[in-house]
Amino acid sequence: MNRPVIVTDIARADAAVVDALAAHGVATVHEAMGRTGLAGPDIRPIQDGARIAGTAVTIVQAPGDNLMIHAAVEQCRPGDVLVITTTSPSTDGAFGDLFATALQARGVRGMLTTGGVRDIADLRGMGFPVWSRDVHAQGTVKATPGSVNVPVVFDGVVVAPGDVVIADDDGVVVVPRLRAEEALAAADARVAKEAADREAYGSGRELSLDRKGLRPLLEQLGVIYVTQAEYERGGN
Amino acid sequence: MNRPVIVTDIARADAAVVDALAAHGVATVHEAMGRTGLAGPDIRPIQDGARIAGTAVTIVQAPGDNLMIHAAVEQCRPGDVLVITTTSPSTDGAFGDLFATALQARGVRGMLTTGGVRDIADLRGMGFPVWSRDVHAQGTVKATPGSVNVPVVFDGVVVAPGDVVIADDDGVVVVPRLRAEEALAAADARVAKEAADREAYGSGRELSLDRKGLRPLLEQLGVIYVTQAEYERGGN
Amino acid sequence: MNRPVIVTDIARADAAVVDALAAHGVATVHEAMGRTGLAGPDIRPIQDGARIAGTAVTIVQAPGDNLMIHAAVEQCRPGDVLVITTTSPSTDGAFGDLFATALQARGVRGMLTTGGVRDIADLRGMGFPVWSRDVHAQGTVKATPGSVNVPVVFDGVVVAPGDVVIADDDGVVVVPRLRAEEALAAADARVAKEAADREAYGSGRELSLDRKGLRPLLEQLGVIYVTQAEYERGGN
Amino acid sequence: MNRPVIVTDIARADAAVVDALAAHGVATVHEAMGRTGLAGPDIRPIQDGARIAGTAVTIVQAPGDNLMIHAAVEQCRPGDVLVITTTSPSTDGAFGDLFATALQARGVRGMLTTGGVRDIADLRGMGFPVWSRDVHAQGTVKATPGSVNVPVVFDGVVVAPGDVVIADDDGVVVVPRLRAEEALAAADARVAKEAADREAYGSGRELSLDRKGLRPLLEQLGVIYVTQAEYERGGN
Amino acid sequence: MNRPVIVTDIARADAAVVDALAAHGVATVHEAMGRTGLAGPDIRPIQDGARIAGTAVTIVQAPGDNLMIHAAVEQCRPGDVLVITTTSPSTDGAFGDLFATALQARGVRGMLTTGGVRDIADLRGMGFPVWSRDVHAQGTVKATPGSVNVPVVFDGVVVAPGDVVIADDDGVVVVPRLRAEEALAAADARVAKEAADREAYGSGRELSLDRKGLRPLLEQLGVIYVTQAEYERGGN
Amino acid sequence: MNRPVIVTDIARADAAVVDALAAHGVATVHEAMGRTGLAGPDIRPIQDGARIAGTAVTIVQAPGDNLMIHAAVEQCRPGDVLVITTTSPSTDGAFGDLFATALQARGVRGMLTTGGVRDIADLRGMGFPVWSRDVHAQGTVKATPGSVNVPVVFDGVVVAPGDVVIADDDGVVVVPRLRAEEALAAADARVAKEAADREAYGSGRELSLDRKGLRPLLEQLGVIYVTQAEYERGGN
Repeated sequence: MNRPVIVTDIARADAAVVDALAAHGVATVHEAMGRTGLAGPDIRPIQDGARIAGTAVTIVQAPGDNLMIHAAVEQCRPGDVLVITTTSPSTDGAFGDLFATALQARGVRGMLTTGGVRDIADLRGMGFPVWSRDVHAQGTVKATPGSVNVPVVFDGVVVAPGDVVIADDDGVVVVPRLRAEEALAAADARVAKEAADREAYGSGRELSLDRKGLRPLLEQLGVIYVTQAEYERGGN
Repeated sequence: MNRPVIVTDIARADAAVVDALAAHGVATVHEAMGRTGLAGPDIRPIQDGARIAGTAVTIVQAPGDNLMIHAAVEQCRPGDVLVITTTSPSTDGAFGDLFATALQARGVRGMLTTGGVRDIADLRGMGFPVWSRDVHAQGTVKATPGSVNVPVVFDGVVVAPGDVVIADDDGVVVVPRLRAEEALAAADARVAKEAADREAYGSGRELSLDRKGLRPLLEQLGVIYVTQAEYERGGN
Repeated sequence: MNRPVIVTDIARADAAVVDALAAHGVATVHEAMGRTGLAGPDIRPIQDGARIAGTAVTIVQAPGDNLMIHAAVEQCRPGDVLVITTTSPSTDGAFGDLFATALQARGVRGMLTTGGVRDIADLRGMGFPVWSRDVHAQGTVKATPGSVNVPVVFDGVVVAPGDVVIADDDGVVVVPRLRAEEALAAADARVAKEAADREAYGSGRELSLDRKGLRPLLEQLGVIYVTQAEYERGGN
Repeated sequence: MNRPVIVTDIARADAAVVDALAAHGVATVHEAMGRTGLAGPDIRPIQDGARIAGTAVTIVQAPGDNLMIHAAVEQCRPGDVLVITTTSPSTDGAFGDLFATALQARGVRGMLTTGGVRDIADLRGMGFPVWSRDVHAQGTVKATPGSVNVPVVFDGVVVAPGDVVIADDDGVVVVPRLRAEEALAAADARVAKEAADREAYGSGRELSLDRKGLRPLLEQLGVIYVTQAEYERGGN
Repeated sequence: MNRPVIVTDIARADAAVVDALAAHGVATVHEAMGRTGLAGPDIRPIQDGARIAGTAVTIVQAPGDNLMIHAAVEQCRPGDVLVITTTSPSTDGAFGDLFATALQARGVRGMLTTGGVRDIADLRGMGFPVWSRDVHAQGTVKATPGSVNVPVVFDGVVVAPGDVVIADDDGVVVVPRLRAEEALAAADARVAKEAADREAYGSGRELSLDRKGLRPLLEQLGVIYVTQAEYERGGN
Repeated sequence: MNRPVIVTDIARADAAVVDALAAHGVATVHEAMGRTGLAGPDIRPIQDGARIAGTAVTIVQAPGDNLMIHAAVEQCRPGDVLVITTTSPSTDGAFGDLFATALQARGVRGMLTTGGVRDIADLRGMGFPVWSRDVHAQGTVKATPGSVNVPVVFDGVVVAPGDVVIADDDGVVVVPRLRAEEALAAADARVAKEAADREAYGSGRELSLDRKGLRPLLEQLGVIYVTQAEYERGGN
């Protein structure tokens, strides 16, 4: 069971929806999807200020082995993002500037990995954005089979090939292909609401405590207001 | 015991002393206080080059719940710094750009948290400095009571409301409110001494080994000078 | 056994070879040495974009104690890099801007430590590059003997005094003194080969799958190509 | 999207197959499934020597909140194993001896969690086996919705309700419900083969190097045999 | 400021109350105190099944230095528990069987440390219970001043000398000296309530969902019950 | 450079000295060697109460690949201990009960690894002692060359083939082959001294503060004795 495969003709989320999602940040899309889809906090960008969205080409490979990245390049199309996972924890720099060069030539928008990356000064210089768990120069071999374009678990979240992955300074979120339009609509709505909130708070006109009606909740939960003198006198 | 409370009228360290402490870095103030007051090494800035000092408004809240931040905004005044802790470890992004907007409108100088933060590109863009253990877009709920302006343990150091908190690229240090003047005087003295040291070392005029009189200590501790040939010949 | 010593007249790698190695990155030199010599992934730069190579002056000191750094400054010459280790794990900021001032005055190119560093804003401002495991303002004492210029283990790799250490955004690699020329020749050869690869991939003219002859390997390893429909239908 | 739900009538793997899999260890089943299905190395047992297999009843709940465990108990049947995940990392002791008492009364065989557990002395005393990432006495609230019997990601591996989960001193492995028979057959075959290996190695009759035909592979990979004198003379 | 001191005549919690608290576990006392007082999840016992309560004699010492443990032994009385912290993170084995021998001779009940311990086979053999963050044989020096019987932060919780510390397989909880009676009364009440719960759940007579009245809460939070067919059909 | 090799005829430390060192614990030998030779605190035993000493047969292998263990078995003799390292961090269970069966048949005393191990219930049952960083059932491949019996870095300490490795509940210490007799003599002396200390402390006859003459040191370091009233009043 679980023969190694390369799936060649994956369905991808609609490009226009992907691009529209790119305008929203990771936090907004995550909230719009009912607080789901987020990879864990250990995946961090190697650059500041990048934000990308694209369709996932996925890899599952052995630790210390980048053979399947070589195979995956061919499966990438413009608008894709490469999503790399390993069968067990690995910090090795399986990805570097030569892969980025090949991917950039094919219109790939960036790379996400639960493992390591190297040549990060070059990657920053090329403007090829990367999110990874580790940065390590450790070289890898090409000896063990793996798979391309099968569903993977990326730091706690399932990514199927063709799903939308969005990444920015806050991390990585995944939108299932068939929910991309729904997520976009919800994100648009959230952004509109937040703009009004921002104006209210930034002008000092209203507190979120009032705007969100939280004062009764505090009272119901038994939170009381006391002076410092009362607090120090005790009871608490 | 330990009813949730919001303490409303906290005493704050003197503003002029706070501002004067802001001119000194975290390392200097920590040394000036006899090497105390430092939070642990896991609290890191989301931006480079910021240095702030302010009076602490403290929060202790449940993991995954930001209700008490909503309550705390109202307690903040110009010159404050918000200090967030959770009752158990949490990486969730309980704080984002909407809170920063509200705080900035009230003159708050920054935020420190033992948990997570999100919207960090926006926070950097706004110039609202933040120190946190994690960056994660994970959303939170508003369901569980907590407290505002009670003493908290912030990554190993006690922070009482109104204490001075200083943060820069080196981390976070806390000066108890009633010791702020004493700490300032000691930090001023240390800076003067270090300036003379810096001139001596930078000019190459003197080694710290001599300036601090450490040669006799090395000898007393049994440290010997040998040539590489002697070392390899052995005995050691 | 293991008396504390300061070795005074260490042999150093040839300066011209060191400088030539500085032109190559950590990843390239590591590959050129048969994928050896790399420190672990937890040693990270405090600045972006720096790349240095130099001859190692080594320290092994007690945790929380920087006495031996005072002793080591005197042993440094132009072109050296200071390499600090502790006898057990320590995050303390044993190194700061005053040491950097003294070292910079002596022509030292940078510092690497398995422990902590502080004053990092000043260090960045001075242009004195540093790689460390931690950033922490915690002060240290001068009370316990240690050694200078003995072989040390630096995050998994042995560094002998006089060895070449190279550090950049990808981490730290060590080249034994007597293998520096051999490593340089191998790195030069690798760079030439990679330039041709880069042109082939960047132009989209050739895939690495073909250029490196990996298609037969995939087949030999049992990796098959399937359509998404075939994949979902099963078997796998 | 993603409304909180409790799925009430899940299909479960065949009981006889589950029990047969229980006789095999985690490592054997993982190998039999082509080296898949394994949760990560951070999930550890609170007791030594337990081995269980059962059908998964899954929970996804908020950090610091055990409401959904209360809801899940009712969904459990004899032969089940409770599988708890949280929407973000949490170490809180959301599960303790009272839940175990209720589950044991319903014939549940054990509990697995990516979070924390408490009352572990009682749990050991009761003979209710538990695997967790953390042990912590921290109490939790009952305030936030979650789901029962939806697919979850358990430390890197997908668990659907009704799947077979097997846990022992080596960790946790998941067998998809529809592959349980196939996995059992493969595990049986592997055990038979390993018994012959064990006899060969234990008797000293044969080395694995020969039994598995690895000598030619070593040669092909360029591994050479040298004496210590040759090795020290160099070249290597 | 912060001169090193040894406080000699600390007030201690009442011995009878301490002993009564010893009968309750860490989880129970933590809950009884409104879910406060708990040290973090990284402090673990070196033995299984021990449960102690005692009055705290506290130490704050330099990393890699056990001088102050020598000083603290003299301050210990029967019924005390030694509580060791360091000024910065340290894994060194500052405590071993010789200290335990001295403390056991004075009636001390155990030791808790945020650092390391060694000789753990001997400690287990002597029946001297220990909770620590690390086990490491690394030796320490006696060179740097510290304090005995001042308030310390022990893995996130403040311990004042004379406070009650309770430790078992679940971790460590601290009861402030002046709240010990209150905590005991609350813990007694909680135990009584839990005994009734345990009977209800163990007999299968009642679910916690009903006993705690949680069904309406689930409904109010929007949690719905669906069949697996409904769930898979979607909408969710 | 760094061709993969298997060194076949290593010199080993004297068997009688090795056996005598086995009687001393890790902490004692580490102290006797001037506080050197210790592996880091993350290497832990999978069993309680085992203590072994033996001569090292070393392995350096790729992550996720156990080919070189197959090759190393043949190089082992009675009295050896297998010491496994990987070229980069790996948690995979590269070692299990079949290897232990083969090694036990050859008189090997145990195994130490910086990586992972599996089948630990079987290993405990066989009485084959193991120290590792991780326990994980993850299977490995046999595809990448490595070396046997070359010097390795084992969690921070250099191990050469034929060196003495000692492991117990406190961790792992390495004694260079040519210093084994010296280490044994020093350890014997230390044990004698500690026996006298133990008697003095256990009888309550003397405090270490007096026996080691530490009272003057405390005074010299400025540590003062104060009452709790004095402490609270001030100054400090």
